[in-house]
Amino acid sequence: MLFSKSLLALAIITASFSGFAATPADIIILDGTVLTMDPKNSVIEKGTVVIKKNKIIAVGGPELAKQYQAKKVLDVDGDIVMPGLINTHTHASMTVFRSLADDVPDRLHRYIFPLENKMVSRDMVRIGANLANIEMIKGGVTTYVDMYYFEDEVAKTVDKIGLRAVLGESVIQFPVADAKNADEGINYAVNFIKEYQDHPRITPAFAPHAPYTNTTEHLQKIAKLSLELDAPVMIHLAETDREQEEIAKRTGGKSPVQYMADIGALNHKVIAAHAIMVDEKDIDLLKQYDVGVAHNISANTKSAKGVAPVTTMLAKGVRVGLGTDGPMSSNTLTTMNELNLVGKIHKLENKDRSAMPPLTVVEMATMGSAKALHMEDKLGSLEAGKLADIIVVDTKAPNMVPMYSPYAALVYGANGGNVRHTIVDGNILMEDRKLLTADESVIIQEAQGFANTVRQTVIESGETVK
Amino acid sequence: MLFSKSLLALAIITASFSGFAATPADIIILDGTVLTMDPKNSVIEKGTVVIKKNKIIAVGGPELAKQYQAKKVLDVDGDIVMPGLINTHTHASMTVFRSLADDVPDRLHRYIFPLENKMVSRDMVRIGANLANIEMIKGGVTTYVDMYYFEDEVAKTVDKIGLRAVLGESVIQFPVADAKNADEGINYAVNFIKEYQDHPRITPAFAPHAPYTNTTEHLQKIAKLSLELDAPVMIHLAETDREQEEIAKRTGGKSPVQYMADIGALNHKVIAAHAIMVDEKDIDLLKQYDVGVAHNISANTKSAKGVAPVTTMLAKGVRVGLGTDGPMSSNTLTTMNELNLVGKIHKLENKDRSAMPPLTVVEMATMGSAKALHMEDKLGSLEAGKLADIIVVDTKAPNMVPMYSPYAALVYGANGGNVRHTIVDGNILMEDRKLLTADESVIIQEAQGFANTVRQTVIESGETVK
Repeated sequence: MLFSKSLLALAIITASFSGFAATPADIIILDGTVLTMDPKNSVIEKGTVVIKKNKIIAVGGPELAKQYQAKKVLDVDGDIVMPGLINTHTHASMTVFRSLADDVPDRLHRYIFPLENKMVSRDMVRIGANLANIEMIKGGVTTYVDMYYFEDEVAKTVDKIGLRAVLGESVIQFPVADAKNADEGINYAVNFIKEYQDHPRITPAFAPHAPYTNTTEHLQKIAKLSLELDAPVMIHLAETDREQEEIAKRTGGKSPVQYMADIGALNHKVIAAHAIMVDEKDIDLLKQYDVGVAHNISANTKSAKGVAPVTTMLAKGVRVGLGTDGPMSSNTLTTMNELNLVGKIHKLENKDRSAMPPLTVVEMATMGSAKALHMEDKLGSLEAGKLADIIVVDTKAPNMVPMYSPYAALVYGANGGNVRHTIVDGNILMEDRKLLTADESVIIQEAQGFANTVRQTVIESGETVK
Repeated sequence: MLFSKSLLALAIITASFSGFAATPADIIILDGTVLTMDPKNSVIEKGTVVIKKNKIIAVGGPELAKQYQAKKVLDVDGDIVMPGLINTHTHASMTVFRSLADDVPDRLHRYIFPLENKMVSRDMVRIGANLANIEMIKGGVTTYVDMYYFEDEVAKTVDKIGLRAVLGESVIQFPVADAKNADEGINYAVNFIKEYQDHPRITPAFAPHAPYTNTTEHLQKIAKLSLELDAPVMIHLAETDREQEEIAKRTGGKSPVQYMADIGALNHKVIAAHAIMVDEKDIDLLKQYDVGVAHNISANTKSAKGVAPVTTMLAKGVRVGLGTDGPMSSNTLTTMNELNLVGKIHKLENKDRSAMPPLTVVEMATMGSAKALHMEDKLGSLEAGKLADIIVVDTKAPNMVPMYSPYAALVYGANGGNVRHTIVDGNILMEDRKLLTADESVIIQEAQGFANTVRQTVIESGETVK
């Protein structure tokens, strides 16, 4: 077995010298259990994936390997090879606040907004994003969708470490660290979008915080600008009781989704985070306006807000992807850890053990997420022509053995620590669990240093955050 | 910092030579964030834990280290040091069936029992238990509670690898691999109990499968024998609709818990797995008879059976510990992965984000589990005199940074892969994530080999398990 593999690898490297016209490539992944997540959900045993520059150029069986030569050959010995996970909703920089005041009621208004008022800065955003980036790479996330402040700082970290991201600059009607009001926020966002719009891995975007924390006029202005600039709009939608009450007051009883539709703020550029408090009519609107939905199971449960009716959304053909929400809400940033919760909790909610089977869950974290971002032509599956965002998951870890179903092994058995290699845009960011594009210990120490400042400022000062 | 640590370590090793009368010990753990889980839930920063033979002999601050000398010093650099996790309910050997037919309705009767009828053997039990053992050691489980067949085979694996376990030989009224009927099962169990009753790490036990799969007479016989032999009794209780219906038929409408109480089969030797379908009166009975409860959140949700009302049980003072259930049900064997689900799902069930806070969850997995086994005098906390079952959890992994609350970091952030060292009975079974008492690759290969037999026998033969 090992002998024949060595021969094969040798054949690949030497093919060009032996008269056989092998096609040049950059990376060849050999002997994978390849979950393509293509329209047929094809699984290829002993599969090969070939990468050239930033794209997948071929996917097939073991015979395919002989047709290509590459300097880098990853023989994965049966491990799962799959599309990188897409985290459709987070606030990456908030890692530095993780595990603060986890169980405070009405936490967003009573704790998080005042905390951010004190602590958010360019430095904080950079330090937190760096920590988030390495956590996500290690956990198999290759693309993430962010909503926060100073998104140009997040962009610099993403650019440097090699991840892919959709980065949304927040717009909110009260004063925040990088804008005095929503108009300033919109200006900040427009400048950021113009600066990064041509970046190969970064999609800059608007991130109006929520319907109830913005005026109708600002939401409409953002909708108009987003179409003009072809930039996504991320928004928290149908997430909280307070939002429902305030929008009902504003509109004489409409739901947040109905309100957004009626003011012309729903379209194919919108990625709605949460969508917990939606009825059948709201779900129909999400489908009608081709809105992407980010499902955040951990935040839904940890906040006790209730679980978004995702099985109904999927049945109606809504574009649903998987997100983690921010690290104060989940408190993890790798969607790999969320698969288990999605698979199990929707069974409980539906009182049906056949609900939300493993394949559907893996689909949600890959192709479903790509669809939620309207990026399914480029991301979400392993097919020739797609961007080379690929992860390899260890199937020899005791918790992954045996593997009668790779989907079940991933959903019910795997954790972030099982990810072995992470490739984004054709570049290996992590190999054999070692980060190649960042110094992990430096980033960890910087985050721990910032946490000490938080302790002094917020906790030990005696000046408690309200 | 590093310099002073080296000096301290040197001081410990050389203390006896420098005239200072240091007390001899076997292992000293230095500079831990020590979660003692003692009655005050004391947390010691820069804490020291001292082990001699199989016991903890001292727990304290950094100054304590100077009073002892030991050949083995584990400087854990701020990592969490805590009692080993106790998995109060599993069927370890079923690892070899993990990820088979996960979503079949009425799976136990339609799939699992027929599968076991074909495949259970001494070999299968040994191979599966070996795989389970390494998964649990890697995930920080130091004691587990097992219910299966050929438990003497499981005992051999536990003895060899160095874990602690309560091992229950199954008793069931229909023919199984190691007994033709319940009487043979009882005889098997009695012989097993007599053989292992003096083992320092193994507590042999009876495991009647459930009330509805045993007769009243056999349940009463086991209750009597368990008191005579001072052996625990593990049983699936109040788990399924079918159980409720059959017991109601048998008794003219009683609940399973009420039935067990009325036939004299509930007492302090009983560990009841699940206890999902219980009302207030049932919970009062569990308290009154001092029964231990194994809460299996993953199995509760994955099977869509509903979540055991654990917040009520805890409020009433019932002994509740955390379990994983078997690897066909959860599908993981490390309770570390379950903390997240317990913390989040009980908030959802109670519609209250302050329900089931992180400290309560960590307590359930350690001291609560020790209490569920009636072993709280020996296990579950780091206190002088207790058995040295200790784990060290990496707090420098990105998903664990920062750590304002170690309990929140464990519950919402950690996964099994974050466990760095596992110590049982004073022996280091895993150091820096490397198993010391077993060859992981041999065990994995043997399990994969058995899985191939399962594929041929059950799947590829065309002879589908009903």
